[in-house]
Amino acid sequence: MLASAIVQSNTAPDIVADPAGTESPAILPSPAAPRAHPPAAQAPPRSVVLVGLPGAGKSAIGRRLAARLGLPFRDADSEIEAAAGQSIAEIFARYGEPHFRDGERRVIARLLAGPPLVLATGGGAFDDPRTRQAVRASGAVSVWLKCRLPTLVRRVAGREHRPMFVGRDPAEVLAELMARRHPFYAEADIVVNCTDESPETTTRRVAEALEAHRPPQRLRVGLGERGYDILVGEGLLAHAGGRIAPVLPARRVAIVTDEAVAALHLPALREGLAEAGFAVAAEIAVPPGEASKDFFRLHAVLERLLAAGVDRRTAVVALGGGVVGDLAGFAAAVTMRGLPFVQVPTTLLAQVDSSVGGKTGVNLAAGKNLVGAFHQPRIVLADIGTLATLPPRELRAGYAEVAKHGLLQGPLWAWCEAHGAAVIAGDRAAQAHAVLESCRLKAAVVAEDEREESAEGGRALLNLGHTFGHALEAECGYDGTLLHGEAVAVGLGLAAALSARLGHCAQALPGRVIGHLRACGLPARLADLPRRFSAAALLARMAKDKKAREGRLRFVLLRGPGDAFTASDVPREAVEALLREEGCAA
Amino acid sequence: MLASAIVQSNTAPDIVADPAGTESPAILPSPAAPRAHPPAAQAPPRSVVLVGLPGAGKSAIGRRLAARLGLPFRDADSEIEAAAGQSIAEIFARYGEPHFRDGERRVIARLLAGPPLVLATGGGAFDDPRTRQAVRASGAVSVWLKCRLPTLVRRVAGREHRPMFVGRDPAEVLAELMARRHPFYAEADIVVNCTDESPETTTRRVAEALEAHRPPQRLRVGLGERGYDILVGEGLLAHAGGRIAPVLPARRVAIVTDEAVAALHLPALREGLAEAGFAVAAEIAVPPGEASKDFFRLHAVLERLLAAGVDRRTAVVALGGGVVGDLAGFAAAVTMRGLPFVQVPTTLLAQVDSSVGGKTGVNLAAGKNLVGAFHQPRIVLADIGTLATLPPRELRAGYAEVAKHGLLQGPLWAWCEAHGAAVIAGDRAAQAHAVLESCRLKAAVVAEDEREESAEGGRALLNLGHTFGHALEAECGYDGTLLHGEAVAVGLGLAAALSARLGHCAQALPGRVIGHLRACGLPARLADLPRRFSAAALLARMAKDKKAREGRLRFVLLRGPGDAFTASDVPREAVEALLREEGCAA
Repeated sequence: MLASAIVQSNTAPDIVADPAGTESPAILPSPAAPRAHPPAAQAPPRSVVLVGLPGAGKSAIGRRLAARLGLPFRDADSEIEAAAGQSIAEIFARYGEPHFRDGERRVIARLLAGPPLVLATGGGAFDDPRTRQAVRASGAVSVWLKCRLPTLVRRVAGREHRPMFVGRDPAEVLAELMARRHPFYAEADIVVNCTDESPETTTRRVAEALEAHRPPQRLRVGLGERGYDILVGEGLLAHAGGRIAPVLPARRVAIVTDEAVAALHLPALREGLAEAGFAVAAEIAVPPGEASKDFFRLHAVLERLLAAGVDRRTAVVALGGGVVGDLAGFAAAVTMRGLPFVQVPTTLLAQVDSSVGGKTGVNLAAGKNLVGAFHQPRIVLADIGTLATLPPRELRAGYAEVAKHGLLQGPLWAWCEAHGAAVIAGDRAAQAHAVLESCRLKAAVVAEDEREESAEGGRALLNLGHTFGHALEAECGYDGTLLHGEAVAVGLGLAAALSARLGHCAQALPGRVIGHLRACGLPARLADLPRRFSAAALLARMAKDKKAREGRLRFVLLRGPGDAFTASDVPREAVEALLREEGCAA
Repeated sequence: MLASAIVQSNTAPDIVADPAGTESPAILPSPAAPRAHPPAAQAPPRSVVLVGLPGAGKSAIGRRLAARLGLPFRDADSEIEAAAGQSIAEIFARYGEPHFRDGERRVIARLLAGPPLVLATGGGAFDDPRTRQAVRASGAVSVWLKCRLPTLVRRVAGREHRPMFVGRDPAEVLAELMARRHPFYAEADIVVNCTDESPETTTRRVAEALEAHRPPQRLRVGLGERGYDILVGEGLLAHAGGRIAPVLPARRVAIVTDEAVAALHLPALREGLAEAGFAVAAEIAVPPGEASKDFFRLHAVLERLLAAGVDRRTAVVALGGGVVGDLAGFAAAVTMRGLPFVQVPTTLLAQVDSSVGGKTGVNLAAGKNLVGAFHQPRIVLADIGTLATLPPRELRAGYAEVAKHGLLQGPLWAWCEAHGAAVIAGDRAAQAHAVLESCRLKAAVVAEDEREESAEGGRALLNLGHTFGHALEAECGYDGTLLHGEAVAVGLGLAAALSARLGHCAQALPGRVIGHLRACGLPARLADLPRRFSAAALLARMAKDKKAREGRLRFVLLRGPGDAFTASDVPREAVEALLREEGCAA
């Protein structure tokens, strides 16, 4: 593996903000100006922390790297000895390892709190979860100098007097350390595979990796003790273990995925988990498609999990789209009354919508999502790289939810108008921005109304376009002729048209919404769909919507981008007239 | 119905504390001295609030009652007019009803905050949920003077000039008011059915009802926003609607029960709900027995609930024992991601154990309770009257959990030794005390460790006797030869014996535990069971227990009554030796 292969997502701006289309009235909850995805400002220098086994070259590479970067170099072990006035061997012998690790963590935290530097750590420093946490919290970049065993054995020749090697075969000692520590080193931000090349070459490769490194963007969903991070970036699957280990009680998971996604992405996830020493208790692949979100399929998944011997510290990892996320999340919620859960969404729809917010569930004969639980994940890994494998129609359908979030947020709508086409065209920086900002909007809404209990507004706002959309999907019988996102796109067009008809928003808004969605290859009016609908049938569906109250139609309407509201008093006649105008039969 | 029929549970002490058996070392969490169920101290006089429709006699009865009780009488309407300096008709006309109700509530709260009195309220005062809450919070006793329509019509003759009657048929007006207000009046503490008898007779009957009235005992389970009350008393089913309405979002429920319990108690619950205007969306009766705690049975219940048109404001009411509570609670937890839930336990086991703590779930092929949710009820109604219909063997089995709570709590163990036989014999005051104190112990443990996450102690302590008990049950194949409570009883005997063997408690403790359980008709040693067990088989079961960690046996052990602890380091040999001594084959 080359160093370049492990560099994380780069969100450098190859699309420049288009000020056109930004005249939208940013009326409500819009903290940020409607810029393009952010420019890669010259980052201030950060400290670099080198981790790895004895012989990996932490000191040799560290000194050269420090010189190259113009930063001071420090060796944590020397600093500890200086601070303690005795050798590490003496501290170990006199006070024991726990005492040493405490001191080591304090020294490392102190060094990283100062001006930027390059810091070589002792081989065991990263064994301690609190030291790993201190390094993460400091904002430093950690680099694992990863070597194969023969390389290490050659390099430690001459160190046989060190306490750890005395009277033992160094190869045996190193193999043991490798098995124990590599899983912890895998939590480093960057992995550089080192060979027998010269220290200068390795140093250059580390410097290049540092320069190319863009950490995944991290968004906190603020739900108190149930809060969690969403990571958005590239290459997350390949290092999934190191990303998720800090928030899980044990390095043991069961993976739930679908057969199509498994073929594409399971090998990378497996490797990414193995790197951090995860045991995989089960890999459960269900058939792709909505039919798997079924109560009896759930039963089969539960029996599989339990037969695999999961315990309360085993996390369930959902690898796939919304169906897998909802099914796996519900299974996690109810197995032993709740297992830790990790979302690894691989579709745009799941990355921007279903993987955030904690809604899980399956369908019953009586309707969709009627059985489920709120079960928040411990972390979400939104790997933008997986979007490259999506069929274009699914990518477009997922984009409908981005556009919805744009209309709810305001400035994001202007960004959508400027850059939506790039998202659809596969531009990774644009995709990362779309995912991150969608999640930011949704996370803010969810944090205010976790269990959808607000009488007005709150999570219900996320149903913009969905009252119409659900009715259209239900009329089509979920047979694949209309994807959820396509139904939402038409629903957004209709919601904007209804808002204008009732005088809530500018008369020009429906045209803008419809124009943008169509430009992205999405249907946005009933006429864009390959079949006709009856107004009466759609109205009947809408009255039975889960969110309808006492049979009254409930819509999310717009005063403009960034200014949506829930309305329970929309006259049936206005909806009917709109549907008739849009071409519905009576 | 006679007034006496509606008097709530009377816990007057017909059993006197026996100081014998109280020498047990109350080492740990024992706030109270080990008294008998508390004596009925002469209660200080409380205010009496009369509610009812126009013509019910609130003023006429109120004045006479006040004289009889030696309390002042006040009429809320007169007080409001005096405070406002205008008539109620004027306040209504000038400021509207909401303004009037606000003032009415403040006046009533002010009057009830003063010295005890008898207060007649306006007919609409109890319509306002905040006024009902203010009356409850004041500590006053509310009495509904309940009249039939013809009586009311006769009595309002001559009041046709009142605004509410002007230009309308009084009978029609009263019938409307009756339909609207009776559900709210049903929340009163006491209901007195009034006939055409003289005011003096009615007054005497109200006074008698007040004297006989013992409100259900109320225990708060402190879980923050998920906290709830447990009501323990008699006659709770018959007035269930008035008890549960204050904590539910709507007067609409679906009842889940089993066929045996339905035959005994569903009619009373139906009446108690109808009295408070509840709509019953569905009555779902499953076959009695553990086999109903099944995933496919759950599916059937969910489909029934949804077919009945439940919405997010419909509560699920579990009427029955532990199986019904676990099944219905899990159905409530997952239907539409969580419906309000009410526990109405009808067995001693459910009243003292499974209805408190929020654990719900069903069994899978892989084991018991492996799928479920923590879903706290909004309220628990433990109607002691239902225990009279329990088969004696089930009553005894439920008592095993009371004894367990006694051993955990300390003073309650001494109470058990003194009064356990009375519980088994059907003494209602003793039963109420056993239920209340068991729930108090369990609620305190659950409040500290809601989701069983404590590494040591916490909810795991509630498994005293259960490591052995679960193994015995599993060996018997849940075929009914050994009830759960019987297995727990033997488990308690073995846990005490193991504790003594390991030197944790006095050598006399096992004898005391075994002696008491046997005196209550429970098995307490393996020799008391009709079959033999193999030590190896039991040990294998124990190692697979859900709470075992990495295959190590986990026990709750005793230092004495009131001083239990979790132990993960019990040598297998000690357990095996004990089992062999108790008569197990190898």
